[in-house]
Amino acid sequence: MAWKAIPQPTMDTLLDKVQFNEQGLICAIAQDENATVLMLAWMNRESLTETLTTGRVCYYSRSRKKLWRKGESSGQEQHLISASLDCDADCLLLTVRQKGVACHTGRRSCFYQSLTPSGIQNLTEPDIRPETLYGEKTPS
Amino acid sequence: MAWKAIPQPTMDTLLDKVQFNEQGLICAIAQDENATVLMLAWMNRESLTETLTTGRVCYYSRSRKKLWRKGESSGQEQHLISASLDCDADCLLLTVRQKGVACHTGRRSCFYQSLTPSGIQNLTEPDIRPETLYGEKTPS
Repeated sequence: MAWKAIPQPTMDTLLDKVQFNEQGLICAIAQDENATVLMLAWMNRESLTETLTTGRVCYYSRSRKKLWRKGESSGQEQHLISASLDCDADCLLLTVRQKGVACHTGRRSCFYQSLTPSGIQNLTEPDIRPETLYGEKTPS
Repeated sequence: MAWKAIPQPTMDTLLDKVQFNEQGLICAIAQDENATVLMLAWMNRESLTETLTTGRVCYYSRSRKKLWRKGESSGQEQHLISASLDCDADCLLLTVRQKGVACHTGRRSCFYQSLTPSGIQNLTEPDIRPETLYGEKTPS
């Protein structure tokens, strides 16, 4: 189902409730329709507004210091199904339709390094080779 | 199933992989056995070590600036089933057995404020009255 854009007056009220941190950011957990947690990333006011308007998930890249339209270079886009804030309004939970894989390693989920008594064990193997995802480099 | 403690030498190797931020913290997403995302909180090296040793989830409270053994005042403890790191090793995903409710408002999950075109709508009502949880105050 297509995302219903949040209209401007509602958006302003809603954004005023969001507790962005000192850097102007809020963390966002993305899960898919089956409730598999895919990744955690950050949003600023601009990327959250864009996400809630277009339904196409846009984060803020802290390393590149710019908007990060998920999938812009890899094609592995996220389309918003629903979004909710936690009790303190300082974390978002997004339910998304994930095209392909969420992780830059080519895995569906970023959370693949299991902590076990014998050390870190990879839970999954890549579904897609990272080289295929990015041609040469620049993960998205 | 009881958590199998991570032994000391493995723990040291593992903790060296974790990318704590400038404040010495890593964010931790807690989900239950049904993959319902319950909350997001933070851990420092000490609280992560305690969690992985005892299997009883211990966060670091940024507001109170001390270890926060989830449920210590409310009784709503979290017991660890599994833990995994994401690809960048700067976020944890915990699967926990949640006693009662995770949220200080008395709801099972903290993510109850749905963002909709008509504003914020509460997805759930409290299962437990917060007054019952804490007697008077101090959420945990």
